Amino acid sequence: MKSANRDVPVVVVKRLPRYYRYLGELLKKGVTRISSGELGKKMGVTASQIRQDFNCFGGFGQQGYGYDIENLYREIGDILGLSNGYKTIIVGAGHLGHALANHSNFAKRGFELVGIFDKDPELSGQIIQGLPVQTMENLESFCTENRVDIAILALPKLAIEMVVPRLVKIGIKGLLNFSYTDIEVPENIAVENVHLSDSLMTLSYKITQNNGD
Amino acid sequence: MKSANRDVPVVVVKRLPRYYRYLGELLKKGVTRISSGELGKKMGVTASQIRQDFNCFGGFGQQGYGYDIENLYREIGDILGLSNGYKTIIVGAGHLGHALANHSNFAKRGFELVGIFDKDPELSGQIIQGLPVQTMENLESFCTENRVDIAILALPKLAIEMVVPRLVKIGIKGLLNFSYTDIEVPENIAVENVHLSDSLMTLSYKITQNNGD
Repeated sequence: MKSANRDVPVVVVKRLPRYYRYLGELLKKGVTRISSGELGKKMGVTASQIRQDFNCFGGFGQQGYGYDIENLYREIGDILGLSNGYKTIIVGAGHLGHALANHSNFAKRGFELVGIFDKDPELSGQIIQGLPVQTMENLESFCTENRVDIAILALPKLAIEMVVPRLVKIGIKGLLNFSYTDIEVPENIAVENVHLSDSLMTLSYKITQNNGD
Repeated sequence: MKSANRDVPVVVVKRLPRYYRYLGELLKKGVTRISSGELGKKMGVTASQIRQDFNCFGGFGQQGYGYDIENLYREIGDILGLSNGYKTIIVGAGHLGHALANHSNFAKRGFELVGIFDKDPELSGQIIQGLPVQTMENLESFCTENRVDIAILALPKLAIEMVVPRLVKIGIKGLLNFSYTDIEVPENIAVENVHLSDSLMTLSYKITQNNGD
């Protein structure tokens, strides 16, 4: 099934983490089966949208039975690559890096946090989530020895320009970028940019609509 | 133009913050005008998608001239309600709350941070971004006196259940929820949930596709 993934529309891919979260919550509540109608209602999309989305991956449902939640949850997790146990580091041990390290959902989703780095020598050796903060000098050797897949960049703009080329050089596979600046990397390296202010702007839109401001 | 906003599809609304960011960057670079084709290329969508999106709000372009960036930037900012200068507090002064308070883009986007709260008495009085951390006892009186519009919830799940009803009671207009738990509020209160692990899952998907894992 996974070989057919390459042509999945980006909008569908973007919905997969949400499906994954919802199904995980249902499993925790002991629910084992759900119809596309019920799932759609919970997620605020139509039943036909749900069926269409899942058909991109070959479909997981049975007519008249609905979806087996455990199976669907595992399949979507596989498609998202969560079972690959990607090894992850955080670069930047300031408040944001620290908050992300403490984010219990990263481990729950199958990402293994193996290292934390910061250029500030005062932070060096501080223990965050059982890991000592390392100086930037260790970056290349550590990533190579530990086969690190993902770097989470919790850095200011200026630092990004110094760090990204070093990560590219040692063959990092993916970058999660919190720096609010575009980064340029070769095509074979995956990048996901997080813009925290986007959600605040979306909230502002909703408030403005509610108030007729 | 704004009176027609209510029927704008959610997917278009979700793209507006991104348009706003891109246009802001172009303005900073001194670009004054752009065609839907160029803008689409920059944003990874088609020119017709751009035109369709902007038509939801009445359209801003002129045939053969393209879009006046300054005008478009201001209009989208108005639609997003950024010119309303919503007064914002952060509840939770841990690492995440601290990182969000330091997030310079919030102020740049027109949100005025007026208060920070935490239940931990040890944090009380600590200065973050020029504001003293306040105890939770002050929450209601401060929000009422200062006409607070938005509360950013940088709290663990358990604390959420205690805090949200208090904010609802004093008439908060919007909640930006970082707690990874669903919150239930009356319909007239806007809620935007931020799931930091969603972006990591999307990154994982991209890596998996790149590698053929």
